[in-house]
Amino acid sequence: MTWYLHPCAQPCQRSREAAVARQRLLTKPPGSLGRLEHLAEQFAGWQGTPLPRLERIRVRVFAGDHGVARRGVSAFPVEVTAQMIANFLAGGAAISVLSRQLGADFAVVNMGTATPLPPAPGLIDAAAAPGTADFTEGPAMTAAVAAACLAAGADQAQGDGLQLFIAGDMGIGNTTAAAAIIAALLDLDGSQVAGRGTGVDDGGLARKRAALDAALARHGSSRGDALAVLRCLGGLEIAAMCGAYLRCAQRGVPCLVDGFIATAAAMVAVRLNPGVRDWLLFGHRSAERAHGLALHSLDAEPLLDLGMRLGEGSGAAVAVPIIQAALTLHREMATFDGAGVAGQSARPRHGAAPGAG
Amino acid sequence: MTWYLHPCAQPCQRSREAAVARQRLLTKPPGSLGRLEHLAEQFAGWQGTPLPRLERIRVRVFAGDHGVARRGVSAFPVEVTAQMIANFLAGGAAISVLSRQLGADFAVVNMGTATPLPPAPGLIDAAAAPGTADFTEGPAMTAAVAAACLAAGADQAQGDGLQLFIAGDMGIGNTTAAAAIIAALLDLDGSQVAGRGTGVDDGGLARKRAALDAALARHGSSRGDALAVLRCLGGLEIAAMCGAYLRCAQRGVPCLVDGFIATAAAMVAVRLNPGVRDWLLFGHRSAERAHGLALHSLDAEPLLDLGMRLGEGSGAAVAVPIIQAALTLHREMATFDGAGVAGQSARPRHGAAPGAG
Repeated sequence: MTWYLHPCAQPCQRSREAAVARQRLLTKPPGSLGRLEHLAEQFAGWQGTPLPRLERIRVRVFAGDHGVARRGVSAFPVEVTAQMIANFLAGGAAISVLSRQLGADFAVVNMGTATPLPPAPGLIDAAAAPGTADFTEGPAMTAAVAAACLAAGADQAQGDGLQLFIAGDMGIGNTTAAAAIIAALLDLDGSQVAGRGTGVDDGGLARKRAALDAALARHGSSRGDALAVLRCLGGLEIAAMCGAYLRCAQRGVPCLVDGFIATAAAMVAVRLNPGVRDWLLFGHRSAERAHGLALHSLDAEPLLDLGMRLGEGSGAAVAVPIIQAALTLHREMATFDGAGVAGQSARPRHGAAPGAG
Repeated sequence: MTWYLHPCAQPCQRSREAAVARQRLLTKPPGSLGRLEHLAEQFAGWQGTPLPRLERIRVRVFAGDHGVARRGVSAFPVEVTAQMIANFLAGGAAISVLSRQLGADFAVVNMGTATPLPPAPGLIDAAAAPGTADFTEGPAMTAAVAAACLAAGADQAQGDGLQLFIAGDMGIGNTTAAAAIIAALLDLDGSQVAGRGTGVDDGGLARKRAALDAALARHGSSRGDALAVLRCLGGLEIAAMCGAYLRCAQRGVPCLVDGFIATAAAMVAVRLNPGVRDWLLFGHRSAERAHGLALHSLDAEPLLDLGMRLGEGSGAAVAVPIIQAALTLHREMATFDGAGVAGQSARPRHGAAPGAG
């Protein structure tokens, strides 16, 4: 059996239930911390402890080029992929700044750029091809390249004690690839999934729609086969992100999914192995048009909705302190008994209150 | 002229424009950080510097009792106000935990509980009355008490170098008072604004609606006069929060408004002195029913929507790291020129791309 079909880990029900019980004892009306309560309960199940914490965070930005970028579907030239990799490593990109602020273990994984990249500190070389082929003309990658990318992503989920994994993306043209994957998996057409990405103009948007429709027409017969969808339409970096989600779920490491590209990768991972879904949390709702459809298909409600559409893992990284606040509240708040505060059940009968009823 | 009618400070346009210009140079597609970009620009205007930071945060929880609580409108008994004040001071309440995590300057301001409170470290005594009167039977407070509460709130906005003010609330029954204020200011009736607060049952909700309708019938003639609305319906702590917002705006200190109670206080402050609105940012959308109506009336779109409904300033405190991330990105990201990344304007004509058009 292929590695990614192996069963995923199971969250610990006992720890989760202990966290649910603890939430009922904390000095607040039951349910009044909203989703923060649910986050604490989820992390209890994921970490197998009733008092979870979130300190060891790994961020991996997977980067790769896209053949379809030659069709003028992006607002930026292809060279920007490699230029931005240098910027990630120099600490000047959004995800670099955010990772530093979180004290996260940060690295860039080169999955294959149009121009080869020299070795550099913080750059992991897993290049499987010099970018994808133009998927309007043929499959984006071979089966061997797809398998190599999945495995390279999985490699990044190794190591002990990891409490959260964030997969980021970089690749000029990759909103077109992600839109194609989402359309194929949800049986939509190009106009339903084409958005402005990094800010393409009307002409670029028309070219993007045309490229998507051409790709879906060419590769439509593979719609029911998630691996074929990934191979025919996906980016090298999207395949690696998919592999990372799969291995994280098998190893019991929760993943905070970023925006549009990451959600497309997560959709493929969940189709390949449905148990992955139990280990996914969604960081933010992207401004990219079809993200809502993709999230809905995964029954996912992201933590944030701030109009972000940058990728790189940035939306997920911004959401991390929300989780940390939830876990700190869960660990550090007093209980009703401990603080000598009367709970709801201790309230007097209101029928006896003057004027009540 | 009464102090709170004095003009509010003006955000610095020059600094704000410098921040807008800087955002255009950062290594990301323009607009791709969504609301984070706007936050950086707002804080630049508020702090009068193109590179703002957020480190000096003050949290004040204003606490007071409510005469209307005797009508059985809350899920908790009145004694909980004083018990929770002790819990705030002992560090076990949600806002205590969050303030500690933020390194904020935290204190509780006693605006008047049913039972007098002994002095305690971290407790500021500004008690103006032993709670409000039952507003279904008469005005909640006298004009002198209302003025004292506004002034006590204003006192908490003193001091130099403050970069953000969060006003929290504690007071059993105060969602009923806040709902009454919102209904009076927006010309709504009790059924449109009554929510479950801390989790009142169906009987309590019916009593809450009845109390609101009785209060609105009794004090309806004051609807057009925000100060009269505050005096007749408001809590002591709501009046203090209103005073804090007013003085912060006059002193040029931005306020991160919490949920339902805080928004009612902010509405009164803005009615009294419209310039206050320029200094308000909204932390979260409460699960409390009528919060959306109140936010809409202020043209406010909160940063978070996590189903929280605790009060205390907790929703605002959870939102602080979002702002800090926005400001850190603004300060620390590289520019296109500095990082050698091609911007959008540098892209080749797509008409020349193979297959484009």
